Amino acid sequence: MTELLPVAVLGARGRMGSEAVRAIGAAPDLDLVAALGSSDPLESLVSAGAAVVVDLTVPEATASNVRFLVDHGMHAVVGTTGWTADRLAELEAQLAGSPATGVLIAPNFALGSVLASAFAATAARYFESVEIIELHHPDKVDAPSGTAARTAQLIASARAAAGVPLAPDATRDELDGARGARVDGVPVHSVRLRGLTAHQEVLLGSPGEQLTIRHDSYDRASFMPGVLLGIRSVAGHPGLTVGLDGYLDLQTGGRS
Amino acid sequence: MTELLPVAVLGARGRMGSEAVRAIGAAPDLDLVAALGSSDPLESLVSAGAAVVVDLTVPEATASNVRFLVDHGMHAVVGTTGWTADRLAELEAQLAGSPATGVLIAPNFALGSVLASAFAATAARYFESVEIIELHHPDKVDAPSGTAARTAQLIASARAAAGVPLAPDATRDELDGARGARVDGVPVHSVRLRGLTAHQEVLLGSPGEQLTIRHDSYDRASFMPGVLLGIRSVAGHPGLTVGLDGYLDLQTGGRS
Amino acid sequence: MTELLPVAVLGARGRMGSEAVRAIGAAPDLDLVAALGSSDPLESLVSAGAAVVVDLTVPEATASNVRFLVDHGMHAVVGTTGWTADRLAELEAQLAGSPATGVLIAPNFALGSVLASAFAATAARYFESVEIIELHHPDKVDAPSGTAARTAQLIASARAAAGVPLAPDATRDELDGARGARVDGVPVHSVRLRGLTAHQEVLLGSPGEQLTIRHDSYDRASFMPGVLLGIRSVAGHPGLTVGLDGYLDLQTGGRS
Amino acid sequence: MTELLPVAVLGARGRMGSEAVRAIGAAPDLDLVAALGSSDPLESLVSAGAAVVVDLTVPEATASNVRFLVDHGMHAVVGTTGWTADRLAELEAQLAGSPATGVLIAPNFALGSVLASAFAATAARYFESVEIIELHHPDKVDAPSGTAARTAQLIASARAAAGVPLAPDATRDELDGARGARVDGVPVHSVRLRGLTAHQEVLLGSPGEQLTIRHDSYDRASFMPGVLLGIRSVAGHPGLTVGLDGYLDLQTGGRS
Repeated sequence: MTELLPVAVLGARGRMGSEAVRAIGAAPDLDLVAALGSSDPLESLVSAGAAVVVDLTVPEATASNVRFLVDHGMHAVVGTTGWTADRLAELEAQLAGSPATGVLIAPNFALGSVLASAFAATAARYFESVEIIELHHPDKVDAPSGTAARTAQLIASARAAAGVPLAPDATRDELDGARGARVDGVPVHSVRLRGLTAHQEVLLGSPGEQLTIRHDSYDRASFMPGVLLGIRSVAGHPGLTVGLDGYLDLQTGGRS
Repeated sequence: MTELLPVAVLGARGRMGSEAVRAIGAAPDLDLVAALGSSDPLESLVSAGAAVVVDLTVPEATASNVRFLVDHGMHAVVGTTGWTADRLAELEAQLAGSPATGVLIAPNFALGSVLASAFAATAARYFESVEIIELHHPDKVDAPSGTAARTAQLIASARAAAGVPLAPDATRDELDGARGARVDGVPVHSVRLRGLTAHQEVLLGSPGEQLTIRHDSYDRASFMPGVLLGIRSVAGHPGLTVGLDGYLDLQTGGRS
Repeated sequence: MTELLPVAVLGARGRMGSEAVRAIGAAPDLDLVAALGSSDPLESLVSAGAAVVVDLTVPEATASNVRFLVDHGMHAVVGTTGWTADRLAELEAQLAGSPATGVLIAPNFALGSVLASAFAATAARYFESVEIIELHHPDKVDAPSGTAARTAQLIASARAAAGVPLAPDATRDELDGARGARVDGVPVHSVRLRGLTAHQEVLLGSPGEQLTIRHDSYDRASFMPGVLLGIRSVAGHPGLTVGLDGYLDLQTGGRS
Repeated sequence: MTELLPVAVLGARGRMGSEAVRAIGAAPDLDLVAALGSSDPLESLVSAGAAVVVDLTVPEATASNVRFLVDHGMHAVVGTTGWTADRLAELEAQLAGSPATGVLIAPNFALGSVLASAFAATAARYFESVEIIELHHPDKVDAPSGTAARTAQLIASARAAAGVPLAPDATRDELDGARGARVDGVPVHSVRLRGLTAHQEVLLGSPGEQLTIRHDSYDRASFMPGVLLGIRSVAGHPGLTVGLDGYLDLQTGGRS
């Protein structure tokens, strides 16, 4: 008989948290031993015997939550934002004294989105041109999206590291805004359309060919496979990992 | 035995003209009776017996060429730009005295592009949101493309006529240019990518659904079916027609 | 003060019906005067004073429902399937005696889908090649989808009417199924992918150019604008109309 | 002053060969020292002082060409097909005695295509569903394309290695061919459309999300960046490498 992995969720009443509770409950290899809301004491995690704890709370609470978890030798899978460089440095210092404990801090649990960003950054140095189109519902207040901005930064830094010049652009006569926003020199275009959720396309071009990497996110359900992968993998990755891609095998690739 | 239609080409040494000469030569129902360069006299069209003349010359020459053609009762298919409102008015006046003669002035002979614009304008009133993405090679100097600007104008005027409000857009925090250029209120995004030729996508969205109309132009060959359609149809459309869509049956549609 | 249009829904407890009840309730120009389930008597429509009745019931009930509505001079907007040629003929006979009454029978209320099919049929005669790709969730039992099959039939009959030959295809060495299914000679490819809902792409190609018409349906909400359009338009279209496209202005198009 | 790399081309009169001659001639760091046709003696490569030789000949000639090159300590970049397992084994044996010599055998020099295949194989284990659509001009005789078949095999073997089951598919009522061909269990759909060149799309789906990796090949020019990368890298990769992806950095990825 296989032993089940005892898992707990912090922020279990939130939108992401309640999805996670459902997904863990449905996973045959996981045992949900605690589902805490903001007023529940963290101590109950200890008595519940949680080995892995998922933090889906709020920026104000996450750093002290994770400190508690590492103190008690529990692995942490964190989807909450608000991790400044200072907080990360403190956490790394704490983890140095707890070498068997793993912490994953993942700003994005959608596997497809994480893979798309990694692929775009990998491909960026091999093409003359690269641009990003992101498409969202029209109730979004920021443009471009945070994911698009981060993808552009990854692309720009991969190109800079490989010595690739800026993409060619002969535009002389531009209606203001037509060529998009520039993030580290990469043009980013933001479409807002009723009916859409969250979508991103990276277009790469060279003489005679084009590579397009597109991710469509239709539903919050898309985060759950990444959360489960984090839960199952965190014990095997002691120390701090930032970004779910740190747990992915990006080298399967193989011969073509 | 079917009689062949006698056709002539003006501007036959240019890039479009030489393609047209080739396409007419290959058409089993057409007879290329003259192929004139800029220094050849128009009178030779008369002796050659041309019934339809294709004008692919330059903006400076096209108005007087067409005047000559109408004077001599020849139908004209014109791909040259430079037709101002004044010139069009003069031409219409002349055609009033020559009621059997047809003139087609078509800024765009790519059937797919003409259909895409017409479909976008037709659909525009039925959707909450609409945006345009146009994609071209990076040697293009203007952004957005003329076709995209015209498509946006058609869309905007169809929506205005139907009383459709501007698309919703909650953007408050925009990196300059992210939301594209506005043409009559329609956002237009211009991508410039090595490897591409000329491409355009109209995206329409409403709650729960999206309609996308995309046209890809890979090659000047794409203009020839439109030129041939113009040649074959012009005699059946006396008077002035602006835009190849005037010759298309946009109502086949049928039951779904 | 504008008078509200009194509307009733049959099949109001079903999935489509309850969406329709919500959509009508939210429309400022409509007044929901009755919402009937399968056991409620149709007579209550009369006392409620419904002018337009939406039938979203089952194939077994729809024909007698509509007969009752026409008998009582109420306009009908019908989304239920099961309308055989015989039933349609009976209905037309009945409507001949009730010349002011309108009936719309619409197998598909998604405006984008209806427009996409109409555009594909319109464009089909102008291109050398045409194929359809439809993409759905993997729980769908039939392939291709009914919508794709109908679109292929519309395309094939438009091409036949215009004398366009079958698309060229040099395939001699085919792994079974690679070239898709043939519906009236049009290749149709069915993709089944977790995460998707209902999507369709019509690809049209000629030398040097491609036209793509894509419809994405993400949600049942996409049917409601079409239902509302039917409700608002049915009184203005006396007699029988099959297909929502009969109520659409497919000719806005305009100059390009 | 930087020294130029002396490069020669075999098969220099062929379509790929003449493109390669042009591309090498235009590269500022390369010196084209010989361009041989099928009747020219290989010995002239030695007197010309070629350090890297590009073989773009025919299946019958390539094995003996490469044997000669390795014998003379020249690095080889090979685009010719026809390398059976036996020939590869012989070549490896020969290279064992020439440990500083590098040979690249690349069935595909389009960087975008190679990257697309590698990304698809990497992503395949993380998604519930995966299908391939390949699109080509209608003069192609085989369906699916060799590239699509290889991509399907890479995907299938990556999923098998990770223990991922076949994609779900509830289809019970299928019009013959609708669900495509199966290559190692992966559905592959082949579209043939006038106007297209060579295109491939890998679609991956999981609950709530989709990842699409698309490659468009418009022109033979797309192979040249890969040929140049091979030329510049082969000396740094002694021994045999099969597939251009062996020379690519597929791990740039980075944090998202």
